[in-house]
Amino acid sequence: MKVGAIEAGGTKFVCAVGNEQNEIIERVSFPTTTPEETLAHVFAFFDQYQDELKAIGIGSFGPIEVRQSSPRYGYILSTPKLAWKNFDFLSAMRARYDIPMAWTTDVNAAAVGEASLGAAKGLNNMLYMTVGTGVGVGALVNGQLLEGIGHPEMGHVIVHPHPEDHYAGFCPYHGNCLEGMAAGPSIDGRLGVSGKEIAADHEVWNYVANYLGQALVDYTLILRPERIVIGGGNMKVPGMLDKIKEQYEQLMAEYVDYPALDEYIVLPGLGDNAGITGALSLANQA
Amino acid sequence: MKVGAIEAGGTKFVCAVGNEQNEIIERVSFPTTTPEETLAHVFAFFDQYQDELKAIGIGSFGPIEVRQSSPRYGYILSTPKLAWKNFDFLSAMRARYDIPMAWTTDVNAAAVGEASLGAAKGLNNMLYMTVGTGVGVGALVNGQLLEGIGHPEMGHVIVHPHPEDHYAGFCPYHGNCLEGMAAGPSIDGRLGVSGKEIAADHEVWNYVANYLGQALVDYTLILRPERIVIGGGNMKVPGMLDKIKEQYEQLMAEYVDYPALDEYIVLPGLGDNAGITGALSLANQA
Repeated sequence: MKVGAIEAGGTKFVCAVGNEQNEIIERVSFPTTTPEETLAHVFAFFDQYQDELKAIGIGSFGPIEVRQSSPRYGYILSTPKLAWKNFDFLSAMRARYDIPMAWTTDVNAAAVGEASLGAAKGLNNMLYMTVGTGVGVGALVNGQLLEGIGHPEMGHVIVHPHPEDHYAGFCPYHGNCLEGMAAGPSIDGRLGVSGKEIAADHEVWNYVANYLGQALVDYTLILRPERIVIGGGNMKVPGMLDKIKEQYEQLMAEYVDYPALDEYIVLPGLGDNAGITGALSLANQA
Repeated sequence: MKVGAIEAGGTKFVCAVGNEQNEIIERVSFPTTTPEETLAHVFAFFDQYQDELKAIGIGSFGPIEVRQSSPRYGYILSTPKLAWKNFDFLSAMRARYDIPMAWTTDVNAAAVGEASLGAAKGLNNMLYMTVGTGVGVGALVNGQLLEGIGHPEMGHVIVHPHPEDHYAGFCPYHGNCLEGMAAGPSIDGRLGVSGKEIAADHEVWNYVANYLGQALVDYTLILRPERIVIGGGNMKVPGMLDKIKEQYEQLMAEYVDYPALDEYIVLPGLGDNAGITGALSLANQA
């Protein structure tokens, strides 16, 4: 049995066909342009497998509508990528392929991927966090995706300003929320250059690690997960994972129990394949 | 069919017998002293119904062990009430009554109660928060108690200091976390008098409302609940609910959708009976 998967990112799409073990058989990738042009590439890829595919799983950039009870279920909502705003993604897919489809966010798909074959394999309570141009988080609670009346937006939690950091934050909604203070553009905002151009021991990384450590404290206090997987561009800065763990430990102050830190806060096991693997897993579940 | 329930609080115990609709038939209450003395009262009450009770639900002060896989499942853990520290509450109950038992925190029981017959009746994704001598929160996610590898301790989330509030917070672990800045003792800590002795329009209530509003923003971004029920001593200050809603709305800055504010952040429907009603509900489920 084969299933299909789409990781629909704001800058690129990944499509794959995989097996029942969520392993990738074939994978293609192309830039995200207009919905029409991008879906033409998607269709060209899956059409080759048309008679074999039993389901398709989609992990999409957002915000998206995830409530099955909503008439807009399957839509991309108020994204700044205007061509995709209010695009009925799921219906476009269903019009082409009459098979079961799964639909969730890109970070939820990555969480499912890491829990399926990655760094949180087999765990039912876990988080996947990515820190790049934004901060995105997906979560499993009791083995189910955490979605409530919409998908989480945990990247925007409130943080306590670092006493030496006088940056006001770039989030257009909240200014100095987690994303506003810790995502990639916060480095440009503070220093006028991107994170790639500054040394790994630059003071600004301590601020970033502090804010991320604060968020992990809040996620731990609220969700009590078994493991937190953290990836994305910022995590490629040498030593960043250790800095975050140090901040986390200090901020938590031994208040609640959590697994040994090296088992608790970890890098992704699947690298760039977390999202597409999760989408395969969701297709297999569908 | 009758079931029993215990709301085991740090200052008083409530025991009740109820029906299949989670309605209270008889209710007694007595001070929390030593485990031996307190349980003697518990046994005296339930012994009257010994042949009729089909299950008992317990919502206990904590921290408690909630993982059924743990050898310490059913214990009260590191409480400052030393006589109860490491007390095997559930085994003491099971030794007396050979019927199914449910075991969770007092605030989780209150969440179940409010979702059963109270202000969040029928909802599967909701929070119950109490703000008194501490800040406690219980939650349902997809209709199940949120427990992960332990029960949440959401009362200790990190908050952004209010610019005019120079109090350092009283939490012995984190200083200025939510509980440290917004629970009852923070009023004494700032002003040297209890909250009962100051006017409802005192500036300090604005700080408290701001911190609680911040926490509700974080809970919303992480859990996307359908409703948040908020009670406890601080909520008896006239106008407090409105102040919190105002702060919440301003801090969220229309970032994610949530139900109409008057339906979203509400006072408890069951008053002091939320916990015991939830414990009856958990007993009926057991």
